[in-house]
Amino acid sequence: MSTKTAPTDRVQVKRLPERGHYDAGTIHAILDQTFLCHVGFVVDGQPYVIPTGYGRDGDTLYIHGSAASRMLRSLAGGVAVCVTVTLLDGLVVARSLFHSSMNYRSAVILGTACEVKDGAEKIHALRVIAEQIFPGRWDDARQPNEQEMKATSVLALEISEASAKIRTGPPKDEKEDYELPIWAGLLPLRVTAGSPEADPALPPAIAKEPPQYLKSYAAPGSR
Amino acid sequence: MSTKTAPTDRVQVKRLPERGHYDAGTIHAILDQTFLCHVGFVVDGQPYVIPTGYGRDGDTLYIHGSAASRMLRSLAGGVAVCVTVTLLDGLVVARSLFHSSMNYRSAVILGTACEVKDGAEKIHALRVIAEQIFPGRWDDARQPNEQEMKATSVLALEISEASAKIRTGPPKDEKEDYELPIWAGLLPLRVTAGSPEADPALPPAIAKEPPQYLKSYAAPGSR
Repeated sequence: MSTKTAPTDRVQVKRLPERGHYDAGTIHAILDQTFLCHVGFVVDGQPYVIPTGYGRDGDTLYIHGSAASRMLRSLAGGVAVCVTVTLLDGLVVARSLFHSSMNYRSAVILGTACEVKDGAEKIHALRVIAEQIFPGRWDDARQPNEQEMKATSVLALEISEASAKIRTGPPKDEKEDYELPIWAGLLPLRVTAGSPEADPALPPAIAKEPPQYLKSYAAPGSR
Repeated sequence: MSTKTAPTDRVQVKRLPERGHYDAGTIHAILDQTFLCHVGFVVDGQPYVIPTGYGRDGDTLYIHGSAASRMLRSLAGGVAVCVTVTLLDGLVVARSLFHSSMNYRSAVILGTACEVKDGAEKIHALRVIAEQIFPGRWDDARQPNEQEMKATSVLALEISEASAKIRTGPPKDEKEDYELPIWAGLLPLRVTAGSPEADPALPPAIAKEPPQYLKSYAAPGSR
């Protein structure tokens, strides 16, 4: 996506416009911090919002799922979609409830997804998604066979009409409220990865050796 | 919501139906674990998905925002909405990429939101939202004044057409893949709260005494 075009009206941050960002660098950086998005689409006038994994490659966002899923089938039909990614960084504990808030980084992408049918691009997309969720895993795991590839749909969404919204820093209270004897500040929230837990079905010799990329896993929001 | 009615077709979990739940107890328990939802709505045929805070009181979900916000104004007009809440519990590291997955608890609520106009219900709703985000904070903070109440819109959504989807436990691989010498298992992910960080503008005597409810804050997903 260009870093120079003005945002469309549809993605422009209207409330608190100083929190809005439209450059590819900011949007890509948020997308690269996690792998979980919420996908919005409309069926018979009803919006649905479904959480799913994704991967980013340049200006393309890939999502995948069962070829039989309602979401994948709906989206492959070329309907309008909204993909939203949210990182919650903490609570903003203001003196007033009115100014109490959250610190967050979020990105919203609008567009129309296309089904990836070409076999080489499809396997590439699956690798991009897998590497965003579990970096380092693709080469270790048993890769998809022909039947699994057929059972999987992959969709591509161009990251062109998009915006980011970011809040950082301490509370911003009304001037007169700074005199009140009320504690105020931030409560940080972060995602952390625990220790890998071996599948009870593994032979002990394998179970005791989880791969390094899981032991040093970079959790969403702190990548 | 009744614990006995069959799910509507719109909320029925079609893929992997064994992961679907429709009883109020399961759905409420997920909603009570966090305060961040993704709200889906449609404007001119385009879906939008926006993260926001919420609070639950019985069978009612409350959300709030600026009276000037596009989302609040759209929803107050009585359009169809989808509210989705997702708790990500970890990565499911299967022997095959095809069966690699995530452990999660999610809830999807469909309906039409109504604006809360009655003053007493509106302040109740704001308290419900605040207490879900920052339990214990309402009584300590400076409460909303008349002007702030006017600038805030509150919406109520009945939790009646809803479903939950849950995945727990180790990977489920293809039978023949259990022979492969590949580590498999779970990588737990959880949200943790850090130490409260005082607003630099606070007098030192207040700054050093963050309230107990922030020092022992129960993070989303582990409430």
